[in-house]
Amino acid sequence: MVLDRLQQLAHQVTATAAPPHPFDPLTTAEIEATVSIIRKEHGPLHYNAITLYEPRKAEMMAWLASPEDARRPVRQADVVAIAPGGKLFDGVIDLKNKRIVSWNHTPDVQPLITMEDLQEVEHVVRRDPKVIEQCGIIGIPMEDMHKVYCDPWTIGYDERFGSGVRLQQALMYYRPHPDDSQYTYPLDFCPIYNAETKEIIHIDIPPVRRPVNKAPPNNYHPAAIEKEGGYRKDIKPIHITQPEGVSFQVKGRFIEWQNWNIHVGFNYREGIVLNNITFNDKGTARPIFWRLSLAEMVVPYGNPEHPHQRKHAFDLGEYGGGYMTNSLSLGCDCKGAIHYMDAAFVNRAGAATTIKNAICIHEEDAGILFKHTDFRDDSVVVTRGRKLIVSHIFTAANYEYCVYWIFHQDGTVQLEIKLTGILNTYAMNPGEDTHGWGTEVYPGVNAHNHQHLFCLRVDPNIDGVNNTVFQVDAVRGPGEVGSAENKYGNAFYAKKTKLTTPREAMSDYDGSTSRTWDMANTNKLNPHSKKPVSYKLVSRDVPPLLPKEGGLVWKRAGFARHAIHVTRYSDDEIHPAGRHVPQTSGEPSQGLPAWIESAGSNCSIDNTDIVLWHTFGLTHFPSPEDYPIMPAEPMTLLLRPRNFFDRNPVLDVPPSYARTPSQVAAGSGTCGCKKNDDGSSVLV
Amino acid sequence: MVLDRLQQLAHQVTATAAPPHPFDPLTTAEIEATVSIIRKEHGPLHYNAITLYEPRKAEMMAWLASPEDARRPVRQADVVAIAPGGKLFDGVIDLKNKRIVSWNHTPDVQPLITMEDLQEVEHVVRRDPKVIEQCGIIGIPMEDMHKVYCDPWTIGYDERFGSGVRLQQALMYYRPHPDDSQYTYPLDFCPIYNAETKEIIHIDIPPVRRPVNKAPPNNYHPAAIEKEGGYRKDIKPIHITQPEGVSFQVKGRFIEWQNWNIHVGFNYREGIVLNNITFNDKGTARPIFWRLSLAEMVVPYGNPEHPHQRKHAFDLGEYGGGYMTNSLSLGCDCKGAIHYMDAAFVNRAGAATTIKNAICIHEEDAGILFKHTDFRDDSVVVTRGRKLIVSHIFTAANYEYCVYWIFHQDGTVQLEIKLTGILNTYAMNPGEDTHGWGTEVYPGVNAHNHQHLFCLRVDPNIDGVNNTVFQVDAVRGPGEVGSAENKYGNAFYAKKTKLTTPREAMSDYDGSTSRTWDMANTNKLNPHSKKPVSYKLVSRDVPPLLPKEGGLVWKRAGFARHAIHVTRYSDDEIHPAGRHVPQTSGEPSQGLPAWIESAGSNCSIDNTDIVLWHTFGLTHFPSPEDYPIMPAEPMTLLLRPRNFFDRNPVLDVPPSYARTPSQVAAGSGTCGCKKNDDGSSVLV
Repeated sequence: MVLDRLQQLAHQVTATAAPPHPFDPLTTAEIEATVSIIRKEHGPLHYNAITLYEPRKAEMMAWLASPEDARRPVRQADVVAIAPGGKLFDGVIDLKNKRIVSWNHTPDVQPLITMEDLQEVEHVVRRDPKVIEQCGIIGIPMEDMHKVYCDPWTIGYDERFGSGVRLQQALMYYRPHPDDSQYTYPLDFCPIYNAETKEIIHIDIPPVRRPVNKAPPNNYHPAAIEKEGGYRKDIKPIHITQPEGVSFQVKGRFIEWQNWNIHVGFNYREGIVLNNITFNDKGTARPIFWRLSLAEMVVPYGNPEHPHQRKHAFDLGEYGGGYMTNSLSLGCDCKGAIHYMDAAFVNRAGAATTIKNAICIHEEDAGILFKHTDFRDDSVVVTRGRKLIVSHIFTAANYEYCVYWIFHQDGTVQLEIKLTGILNTYAMNPGEDTHGWGTEVYPGVNAHNHQHLFCLRVDPNIDGVNNTVFQVDAVRGPGEVGSAENKYGNAFYAKKTKLTTPREAMSDYDGSTSRTWDMANTNKLNPHSKKPVSYKLVSRDVPPLLPKEGGLVWKRAGFARHAIHVTRYSDDEIHPAGRHVPQTSGEPSQGLPAWIESAGSNCSIDNTDIVLWHTFGLTHFPSPEDYPIMPAEPMTLLLRPRNFFDRNPVLDVPPSYARTPSQVAAGSGTCGCKKNDDGSSVLV
Repeated sequence: MVLDRLQQLAHQVTATAAPPHPFDPLTTAEIEATVSIIRKEHGPLHYNAITLYEPRKAEMMAWLASPEDARRPVRQADVVAIAPGGKLFDGVIDLKNKRIVSWNHTPDVQPLITMEDLQEVEHVVRRDPKVIEQCGIIGIPMEDMHKVYCDPWTIGYDERFGSGVRLQQALMYYRPHPDDSQYTYPLDFCPIYNAETKEIIHIDIPPVRRPVNKAPPNNYHPAAIEKEGGYRKDIKPIHITQPEGVSFQVKGRFIEWQNWNIHVGFNYREGIVLNNITFNDKGTARPIFWRLSLAEMVVPYGNPEHPHQRKHAFDLGEYGGGYMTNSLSLGCDCKGAIHYMDAAFVNRAGAATTIKNAICIHEEDAGILFKHTDFRDDSVVVTRGRKLIVSHIFTAANYEYCVYWIFHQDGTVQLEIKLTGILNTYAMNPGEDTHGWGTEVYPGVNAHNHQHLFCLRVDPNIDGVNNTVFQVDAVRGPGEVGSAENKYGNAFYAKKTKLTTPREAMSDYDGSTSRTWDMANTNKLNPHSKKPVSYKLVSRDVPPLLPKEGGLVWKRAGFARHAIHVTRYSDDEIHPAGRHVPQTSGEPSQGLPAWIESAGSNCSIDNTDIVLWHTFGLTHFPSPEDYPIMPAEPMTLLLRPRNFFDRNPVLDVPPSYARTPSQVAAGSGTCGCKKNDDGSSVLV
């Protein structure tokens, strides 16, 4: 503990000594400076978000290229604030010159719902007479109102209420005991909460009522497990240790590891943002990605009965993946030697707040990196791999998203997401038909079908800023079986289609051709293959958006209509469902569809500065084994170097074991290794 | 070493003490007993394979159900032997009664190529005058013939030579130095080897000649790396230890771990075979799979130029995934506390041989098993998972397949395959056009496009032998946007299509519906969901067979025509490309297509004893980073319990950290855990 504290102090000293890097998130001091600059001119406000106004790409690239000569990008803050009366202001504050660069009222939009916004609703709901009345109708007496809970969600969009008033919908639950899982006791009605007046303005009541569930609790807490016989005792510990420390170096927020160099940013919205990712290829730091993030997501539920259509959370744009991030100081979620980073935000009142240990950075063994045995003589090489993982976990009401950005030694970047937490549930009567829109996962508990659709934003920088996207399909060669050109019918090849305009680039996944997408620099060819240097997006969990064309979700989540969109780079295009997402009608669709239309859907995206947007995810039909808490379900995608390196870039990773034919012949080689105490062998 | 030897002796004693379980592979003693029984009647033979003649399912099930009353299945051996003159015999030997049950000459087929068969060819090739002549033509002088190497492959099928004579094709290479990678020096001609006469009977010579490559070696051995600057020095060790030992118990060849019980078999063909997989669900051992194995694979290459169509190895059926298995005693391929099993085979002369440490069994940490935080009060549970991995690695000439059968605590079975090793390469002249059929991965080295298609054989036993397969598609609900039934367009559901006949069941993957397949027991419904108990196959790497319908590979690899086949169970239907695969013409197609035709493609597979065959894999367009040795490329699929358990079966796994709302309110909970030295927290 003393050491922890000393490290903390040392860190603070370093933090004050070195000015933040232009990519760095705002510090707590910068957040508070921002507020004080605004306060002087605009008085008291409710702060919704203060985050880094990211340096303009051109300016930043110029500075990185020659930090001595070019102007260092000025630290600026991007501000969302709500004035009395609910007026929304978007502003940019220059922190160097301590001035307001822009301050604009943005009408008819609602900024995201913060944790503070969410926390208020339950208290209001419990005291509202109409809610108390509804509780009474389904069997909860007034004296039990302290046992009534709600998960407040943004309202999505409800045409009866529009966008003018800031609203939340309260998904209602009951807890017989404070430690009981409320999701076993969903209530059948849904109050609508006005965040400005802090009152319930409406309650959606279903035509068929469902009295509160009478089933016994279905809990996963220690007391419940002890009551059922206790925890299993047959798991022996596994210790993972790094006695010599980690293999990565953290310099400010840059991480150096196994030829990679990565800046780790973080914001309230996207959570982790990775900037200026380069790979040291035999002494040359080659740029690969300018910026990588999960930029948006939508979770549409498939029950068409009113008002379940409103359940289609944009967890990043409506709540903020950063805001909802778990502090990993409460229970370690990773094993091994961990480096943490905190996250700083503003609270409603304008004070800086911190999530301690928001980001986890650690290494893991990655199994076999490569192996080959010569069948002639058992000469062999086997080399183990390592991976670096930058992760955070956020809790969206009932659900947990664990986001792992994984760097491999061979130049692959992997994004893995694990879904866990608790299913969103709704009440059902005994014997009620789910009509296939959900599953009874426990008596009286209906878990509705849903999708988790994520939007990965990739700003490629493959050996330079001008890149091109190719759609790659594995297809059969021409010529029928028996023809001269394809006598045996075995011809197949990679058909590459250049995506030349944003319109063309709006494209879908095709499992039947194992479709992938190459982000290529056509100005630079691989010396051996003569193909453009590229990174390939390999993604196999790519369901289409199931809500129908023209419907509510389709209109609001324009980014999810296609697996791939490609746009010309613009500094302001970060959020594919728009900057302010709650209560957007989708008429017209914000974000990607709007940008593509305004830039011209036929503009060129060939050999220029582009952004690739990839929607992936999964469709979840719940089953009882997902309840009362879901075993983590993983999903992954890869960004793989193809024709980028001129050979396997990991040949110099020390092998666990190697023996050449000459060593075999000489009877040596086997003696050239010793066994580690962890069971692996090493060359000595 | 002394301890190793003692353990070995102890193991032998145990082995002689307990009779083999009917599922157990044949012991070395049983293999030698088999040979001696045959020798008495049939004299000297070349042995191709002796393996367990697996107990008939009905008999085995009866015995497992009541071992006291039912007859214990008799140990029998399944034999493939070649008599002088090349006559093939298939036999079954009863080891208890020491008699030959059947012994049949099988005409016009060729059994697989053993390692001994493979080892012979290189020596013959080097001495063959016509090969020496061809080497001379492309620039290899006669005195360098010891630098000429070949990877002998089965010939696949060549209509000029048919099936009557046992043949191999020699893919030719050159090594300037014995430690150089030969794959940088492919030769352009291809000798055909007669395994009976041990001579070269033909050489395929391309119309355009390609002198042997002049490029410098491209090596990955330690001396080469040292010459280029040596191994990287920035990787700190990661130690993975289990000071209290492993959490699994091995009883004979049964493994008990975290409610799972699995019998681990092994044969020369499929490698690992998992039998009688059950899960202890609150005291009841529920059957899940009767047998799981990788039953076949095919690796078609996509270059239509003669004779590359012959490159479409059936690595299991033509060589044997068991025979080619690496001994893991040479360099450990897994970390942690490992339990190994050996594999016993017959050699050509009829003696038993052993691959030491053929199978690796170990545990790994599996990251977060589940987590949930309540946003109201930070009450939280986070539990780490564990997995059990049963693996082997086999080397098919140039290539390595690492096969991991992974058992998860939540009832999921995962099959992960990592591809590594070396690309098959062919010669190319400077500036030669690959025509898109391959990639120049290094000067003069053309790596052809190829697919790796694996056939997973699943013999489901989902709460009993009578099972049914449903195809499950995520589809939009009926009703246009604006209609009463689907006003907002958000309806979607899981469309389940029962596969009632083998013909119907020949079906493909559909990425656009996130297609999965349920193996269900329709006689038993989940108490909550009222849906049949089932296991769902979730597989996303499912390319179609790219060689065309009616072509050579399509005919020979009938199993690969569809992602899914379902057949009625038959004891004799194990090998989906047929029992003897080399030199089959595919006219008619052996294995799956033949069985389906003979059983009647319209017979019922509804609620009966069935087998599901799943073809999955990937299409590989090589790139320079895959060379000179390929960083492992992973691919995975899941068998997940759905509606099988009545709730999450891992709630009793001890959490790393848990704190309930009452503990939060009481200010306790955080004190209820301590930090392990491995960085995780535990309840105390």
